[in-house]
Amino acid sequence: MGGRAMAGKNGLMNPIIAGRLARCRRVMAEKGVPAYLITSHMDSFYLSGFTGEDSALLVTPKAVHVISDGRFDETIDHEIPWAKKHLRKGLLTDEIANVCRKLKLDRVAVQQEGMTVATHAKLRSLTKPVRLTGAPSIALEMRRCKDETELSVMNRAIRIAEEAFSATRRSIRVGQTEREIAARLEFEMRNRGADAQAFDTIIAVDGNASRPHARAGDRRVKKGSAILFDWGARVGFYHSDLTRVLFVSKIQPRLGKVYEVVLNAQLAAIQAIRPGERMCDVDAVARDFIGKAGYGDRFGHGLGHGLGLDVHEAPSLSWRSKERLTAGMVVTVEPGIYLPGVGGVRIEDDVLVTADGCRVLSRLAKDLKGSVL
Amino acid sequence: MGGRAMAGKNGLMNPIIAGRLARCRRVMAEKGVPAYLITSHMDSFYLSGFTGEDSALLVTPKAVHVISDGRFDETIDHEIPWAKKHLRKGLLTDEIANVCRKLKLDRVAVQQEGMTVATHAKLRSLTKPVRLTGAPSIALEMRRCKDETELSVMNRAIRIAEEAFSATRRSIRVGQTEREIAARLEFEMRNRGADAQAFDTIIAVDGNASRPHARAGDRRVKKGSAILFDWGARVGFYHSDLTRVLFVSKIQPRLGKVYEVVLNAQLAAIQAIRPGERMCDVDAVARDFIGKAGYGDRFGHGLGHGLGLDVHEAPSLSWRSKERLTAGMVVTVEPGIYLPGVGGVRIEDDVLVTADGCRVLSRLAKDLKGSVL
Repeated sequence: MGGRAMAGKNGLMNPIIAGRLARCRRVMAEKGVPAYLITSHMDSFYLSGFTGEDSALLVTPKAVHVISDGRFDETIDHEIPWAKKHLRKGLLTDEIANVCRKLKLDRVAVQQEGMTVATHAKLRSLTKPVRLTGAPSIALEMRRCKDETELSVMNRAIRIAEEAFSATRRSIRVGQTEREIAARLEFEMRNRGADAQAFDTIIAVDGNASRPHARAGDRRVKKGSAILFDWGARVGFYHSDLTRVLFVSKIQPRLGKVYEVVLNAQLAAIQAIRPGERMCDVDAVARDFIGKAGYGDRFGHGLGHGLGLDVHEAPSLSWRSKERLTAGMVVTVEPGIYLPGVGGVRIEDDVLVTADGCRVLSRLAKDLKGSVL
Repeated sequence: MGGRAMAGKNGLMNPIIAGRLARCRRVMAEKGVPAYLITSHMDSFYLSGFTGEDSALLVTPKAVHVISDGRFDETIDHEIPWAKKHLRKGLLTDEIANVCRKLKLDRVAVQQEGMTVATHAKLRSLTKPVRLTGAPSIALEMRRCKDETELSVMNRAIRIAEEAFSATRRSIRVGQTEREIAARLEFEMRNRGADAQAFDTIIAVDGNASRPHARAGDRRVKKGSAILFDWGARVGFYHSDLTRVLFVSKIQPRLGKVYEVVLNAQLAAIQAIRPGERMCDVDAVARDFIGKAGYGDRFGHGLGHGLGLDVHEAPSLSWRSKERLTAGMVVTVEPGIYLPGVGGVRIEDDVLVTADGCRVLSRLAKDLKGSVL
């Protein structure tokens, strides 16, 4: 229990966090949310800066309560000394309910994206007479557009991924397995400051690349192989996500042709990115290009996705979405063509939507000639 | 769409999966579940062997339907050719609803642990007139006790973590950062066949070890340092989870004393593990021991947790649980003592509950003398 006042002597709130909480509270006031309960780790990190998992955040107009456990006692004092700290002895749901009742809240609005049906059912019976209702997705909405602080961390995650790729590229030898290349790439990212790989690194040699979500396995690089890399770094909880294809010694003509189609589809789609554009229309630019080249049935996934505290987050840059791009969004642009039994080519960059267009944040070369080892 | 018959010519079902599905269907019949919908990746992998994410599994008495997307088309044909395949063009929830309606189901029971409140609300309105109800946690219950196949993969995950630790241990030098040691340890695991680290590797030097969930940062190893390692490997989706403390050149007397207390508390708790024992009673063995040594308020977390397809899964080996141990469970046993400003000691092994007691699956030495570099 315990906790210090929000502007306590032991630690003032970081102004970025203060700004986010102020925006969050404005939305709460507008939408009539008296208290906002968040159990998703990344939403809670976004709104408070607290890095602990298995915890909950309860934002009220006057205070931020963090409900956690003894493992994070010191971390809370260090990271968010201004929060009111509640350390559970029982289950997290029990302690959330205790706090809600102690604060004599009439109603608590729950962020519904971060909580399972099972937890919600348990919590609902525990919090009585406090009522649980659904909250608008305040944190998730805010996270769609990145601020300068977020962009600087994301740029670092991109640079680390790129430098690690360049180092790994130089080390590739005929006979290596996909797994060995992945191990090296992850090691190079880690040694440059990554906290982890952003997701399971995909290294797919030759025929394995026809499965867009192949994992790095035991297939070996041969002379003439095409190697697909889909990788990223996690830095300060933000992610990068890139894809490149390298050719060993020579380019198989069929894949070389496909490569040019994918690359030009990607460049055309990036050209179309600007505020106000619909997701489905940007997707269509790449899809139509690939379709006209005769590979329409070989591009079975969306063009891209939002990137930030989650590797896949809103918005979805796909034919399924009629939403519009907004300045500050960071999306991946990653068309691909997959030929079962032969291989696949996907090229992916991370792109920031700016006030008058977009800026490609990733800088690795992607011309066909430069992709030969 | 499409899909082949369950015993189709192109791929018979693996007998282990067939056994799991048969058990699942027996429980469905007993509990009156006409169709069981699973959206959690690991539950779906457990019941089918399908490795794709962002997908759903619908188990009926006669068939298994997999609802996925184009990225996993080839993977489905390869891994579960006996399943009925439904590839979505729209959102996953839309396609789940389509399948439920097409099968003219009256009612579908949803595994509530794997679905968010937001998804559930959307799905409920989409599936009408098919009714959604809560399913008993069939897959999660089954996953509590490991079969021989699972144990052999888990043993591999443990061996890889151990061998990587031994290799990393030999490479530690004064002046290295926590992050560099973590990078090396993860690289060694990856090169021995791990698909990834089981979780964010904790390397905590000296004072950093007083936070049980510290991350590997920039603190450097000095002569006389204590280094806490909490790490594991993920292999075939199963996890290992170990903790050791190493001392550089010499043992600080205060930490040496704490080490002996933690080690003896851990050994006593392991002695107490057998089928029928209550979780809280095993936890109490270690807790009482640490309490009697005068560190009762310095062991703020539970004794351990179940380990398998998730790093933290049921059961919870803690004072909060009155459940009883069962043969086949694999739990971590990881008491710790944390001294803010000084450091911390935690010792963790992975333990299988057997018919007449338990077997410690991990084999790394843990005597104090052997922990000096």
